[in-house]
Amino acid sequence: MTILGIDPGIGIVGYGLINAVRRRISPIAHGVITTPKENSVPSRLLEIRRDLCDIIEKFHPDAAAIEELFYKSNQKTVIPVAEARGVIVMTLEEHGIPIYEYTPLQAKMSLTGYGRAEKKQMMEMTRIRLGLESVPRPDDAADALAIALCHACTAGLG
Amino acid sequence: MTILGIDPGIGIVGYGLINAVRRRISPIAHGVITTPKENSVPSRLLEIRRDLCDIIEKFHPDAAAIEELFYKSNQKTVIPVAEARGVIVMTLEEHGIPIYEYTPLQAKMSLTGYGRAEKKQMMEMTRIRLGLESVPRPDDAADALAIALCHACTAGLG
Repeated sequence: MTILGIDPGIGIVGYGLINAVRRRISPIAHGVITTPKENSVPSRLLEIRRDLCDIIEKFHPDAAAIEELFYKSNQKTVIPVAEARGVIVMTLEEHGIPIYEYTPLQAKMSLTGYGRAEKKQMMEMTRIRLGLESVPRPDDAADALAIALCHACTAGLG
Repeated sequence: MTILGIDPGIGIVGYGLINAVRRRISPIAHGVITTPKENSVPSRLLEIRRDLCDIIEKFHPDAAAIEELFYKSNQKTVIPVAEARGVIVMTLEEHGIPIYEYTPLQAKMSLTGYGRAEKKQMMEMTRIRLGLESVPRPDDAADALAIALCHACTAGLG
């Protein structure tokens, strides 16, 4: 099955697609949706929606994984990030894609077995689990692959 | 011109439509979109989008007004409310409707001339300005009408 991991944001949305079949995991694609700072938030949200629709139509994911957002996250950005996250999960729902939400703790535990793993360790485990030569770039895309892997492991697929 | 005011939320979205022509303001319609608590957030967001599309297609608003959301708003609900707000402003943008955002202070000032006006005063001024016999119900719909009126006044239409 194809799993789409998403790292939500307003300026950069990371996405990562992996294939998980019979406990074998392979990377499909990853990248970022970026929106220009000078545009209005509503137009940036619309751009995120349109680009996400393109990704869904291209890769037909069977499931999506996304991190839960917490109030304590980042005071400055939590509202626009939540607005973008709302657009993202609504668009996934509209396409009939089951959405799985994980806390940062769950993501860390499932990938490294250690709830206080550092970002670097998460990145390295993502690289190893996907058999990649180097850590995926940029960070937002790597984070998206990590959450897709978290779902694969949690659902017993990886 | 037809102005659509919106009071965003995840369980209840208030909406209010007014007509403002040559400094004459009249009410068109108001009400709420409600979503069941027992449904998932993504499905509630999709419901909000679909109901909002129906309202837009029925009334063809020329402009939309919505309150800014602040981090300090309400810790418990700010994330789902922001998610809903994201879906709402993206949907308005998609329909080519100009979006005007006001702070609670701006709304209070424009309606009552007093920045620390209480909710009751706002409701009463909304009733008077729209020539209604009673305060619009529920509160969420009255709040939506108030923000539409705020835009009419601020834009020199009312």
